[in-house]
Amino acid sequence: MTNHSALPTPSALIDEKKMSCNIDRMQRRIAELGPRFRPHVKTSKCLEVVQRQLAAGAQGITVSTLKEAENFFAAGIDDILYAVCLAPNKIEQAASLIDRGCRLTVVVDSAAAAGMISARKTPLGKTFRTMIEVDTDGHRSGIRPQSEELLEIGKILAGGIAELAGVMTHAGSSYDVDTLEALQEIAEQERRLCVLAAERLRGAGYDCPEVSIGSTPTALSARSLEGVTEVRAGVYVFFDLVMKNVGVCGIDDIALSVATTVIGHQPEKGWAIVDAGWMAMSRDRGTQKQKKDYGYGAVCDISGAVIPGFMLASANQEHGILAAENGIAAQDIARIFPIGTQLRILPNHACATGAQFPEYRTINNDGSTAVWERFHGW
Amino acid sequence: MTNHSALPTPSALIDEKKMSCNIDRMQRRIAELGPRFRPHVKTSKCLEVVQRQLAAGAQGITVSTLKEAENFFAAGIDDILYAVCLAPNKIEQAASLIDRGCRLTVVVDSAAAAGMISARKTPLGKTFRTMIEVDTDGHRSGIRPQSEELLEIGKILAGGIAELAGVMTHAGSSYDVDTLEALQEIAEQERRLCVLAAERLRGAGYDCPEVSIGSTPTALSARSLEGVTEVRAGVYVFFDLVMKNVGVCGIDDIALSVATTVIGHQPEKGWAIVDAGWMAMSRDRGTQKQKKDYGYGAVCDISGAVIPGFMLASANQEHGILAAENGIAAQDIARIFPIGTQLRILPNHACATGAQFPEYRTINNDGSTAVWERFHGW
Repeated sequence: MTNHSALPTPSALIDEKKMSCNIDRMQRRIAELGPRFRPHVKTSKCLEVVQRQLAAGAQGITVSTLKEAENFFAAGIDDILYAVCLAPNKIEQAASLIDRGCRLTVVVDSAAAAGMISARKTPLGKTFRTMIEVDTDGHRSGIRPQSEELLEIGKILAGGIAELAGVMTHAGSSYDVDTLEALQEIAEQERRLCVLAAERLRGAGYDCPEVSIGSTPTALSARSLEGVTEVRAGVYVFFDLVMKNVGVCGIDDIALSVATTVIGHQPEKGWAIVDAGWMAMSRDRGTQKQKKDYGYGAVCDISGAVIPGFMLASANQEHGILAAENGIAAQDIARIFPIGTQLRILPNHACATGAQFPEYRTINNDGSTAVWERFHGW
Repeated sequence: MTNHSALPTPSALIDEKKMSCNIDRMQRRIAELGPRFRPHVKTSKCLEVVQRQLAAGAQGITVSTLKEAENFFAAGIDDILYAVCLAPNKIEQAASLIDRGCRLTVVVDSAAAAGMISARKTPLGKTFRTMIEVDTDGHRSGIRPQSEELLEIGKILAGGIAELAGVMTHAGSSYDVDTLEALQEIAEQERRLCVLAAERLRGAGYDCPEVSIGSTPTALSARSLEGVTEVRAGVYVFFDLVMKNVGVCGIDDIALSVATTVIGHQPEKGWAIVDAGWMAMSRDRGTQKQKKDYGYGAVCDISGAVIPGFMLASANQEHGILAAENGIAAQDIARIFPIGTQLRILPNHACATGAQFPEYRTINNDGSTAVWERFHGW
């Protein structure tokens, strides 16, 4: 019965020094390659984090929901790319943001949605600044850069009331590889095909000033960003075990962890039960198909040092089951991790784990801490 | 471009009539078998839902976090079982709840934790009402009903300051089966072994008034609850696809769904892209290992009627990929589900999906709706 720390558990901890290094690394890298950098704030949904990204040189933000746009606009951030194709039932809220002075950019990937946007102005008579989403790796949304429909959408936007701001893409398939060669190949494909889409639109006589690309793995792997005006990335701010497996960070770069306390044991099975279950870690099992499966997370001592050989093997809502990675029951588990022991668990996916918490607690090298609120919902 | 509904998406919808039927079914069943019923509120974390469970006859509530205890106690519910073994860093908050008048019951499953609790009173001199968690199916926490340690813990609690309130168990392995015979067998094992633990404690001379058992599948399958004083269950209030696969509800009994809007297509792949990704559905893939895998959810029209043959096959943070269950690309997907179409997605796991939302929207047969807040965090 040791370590009766007053730290409430489970808690989402941010190691501020690691986060700062991650922010500086990305910002420096993109600055060297030329484009502007527009962080995706869906990872943190936290003003204090985003302020640090902007202070490091980021220009504008990327959001995944209009709630993110509303909250960050209310905090004074007015250059916002809403990087999910606009649904008809969100157009009024988008218009309202624009009318209140937000430089909001919306995204479409179909003639139907382009028609919806180009046929109208906002209540105050402003136009929708619009990007066309391009599919550069087949993993999700977007239209093919070589397609006729790309030019059709360009024509609808250019011929209507909307402002065609450019093209954007997200090479999400970069999460599925784990060698530098493969990452560089996807990064180059992302760049090349998005630039191709812009050039086809320009060739057809449409303005297409912006070429916006990005994902954390491709942003950190691209050798050239020629023709690209803007890069987006989100999870790099914290990193996580999926990114470690992809190969773009080390396990010691991961700035987000979940503090937890040992509450029981099953010695015959070699289990320590902790108070971080899937409600704390999220149900994300992103490392399951990767080269190293961390279960629900990697185990560290409360100072953040990795404890090799153990993982959060399983999880119920408020119970995590900590066990040996090799599946052999550590029958002295209660001696290794007595009840009350506090630990940190590194998450598979920082975007999913952070979302389980109403706030982050920061941990600094000088021992100081702070509580930073985050929001969720739509 | 049809169905420009004003319903914001994604939203967590509660079909109130279905929820009422689920509440009544469980309450009636347990009343017939004899014990009291103490619903687990970790599923909804919503006062309006819990008030309906209590109005139907439930006696007290079960919680998975002290935040749930605090919030429901603040709303006037004072009989609360905190069904996760108490961590040392939570003892002060538990004591504070007791001192403020909450009839809080805490749980231990080790001599170490029993010693911690039995050695102290609350600041106002009250004792900790304590249950011993018993492991009746090997799936997680608890001590074996046949073990010497059970009596040791009984002795520590009876010999110290704490009040031994009884024994409790949760047969979580009932989620892993899907026949009535197997469910009845696990239910009987849960009952028999928890009663055995109580009888061994009583035989050793310790008071053990309560025998508390339960999970949704066993509560709905048990043929006898002899010796049991109290049953607990949570997910039955909404049900979900995992419970449908287990066999304790029909798909039409599921009261929770996520409203979503179609935002794009990849016709060659037969994909409709919707605005409910894993941030809305959660990352829970509970049906993955069951007899029918629903991906990230089953697809219904906006009135709640199941659309056979389609599922939410994949999910990114704010993008869901809706596709045919049989894997054959429906190339007319944009005609079947035009942009703007609103749908409901039934979740794998209601506890996980609900937790992604700050509020529920209720849908009633008479067309009326309401917004019910829910909370998250610790």
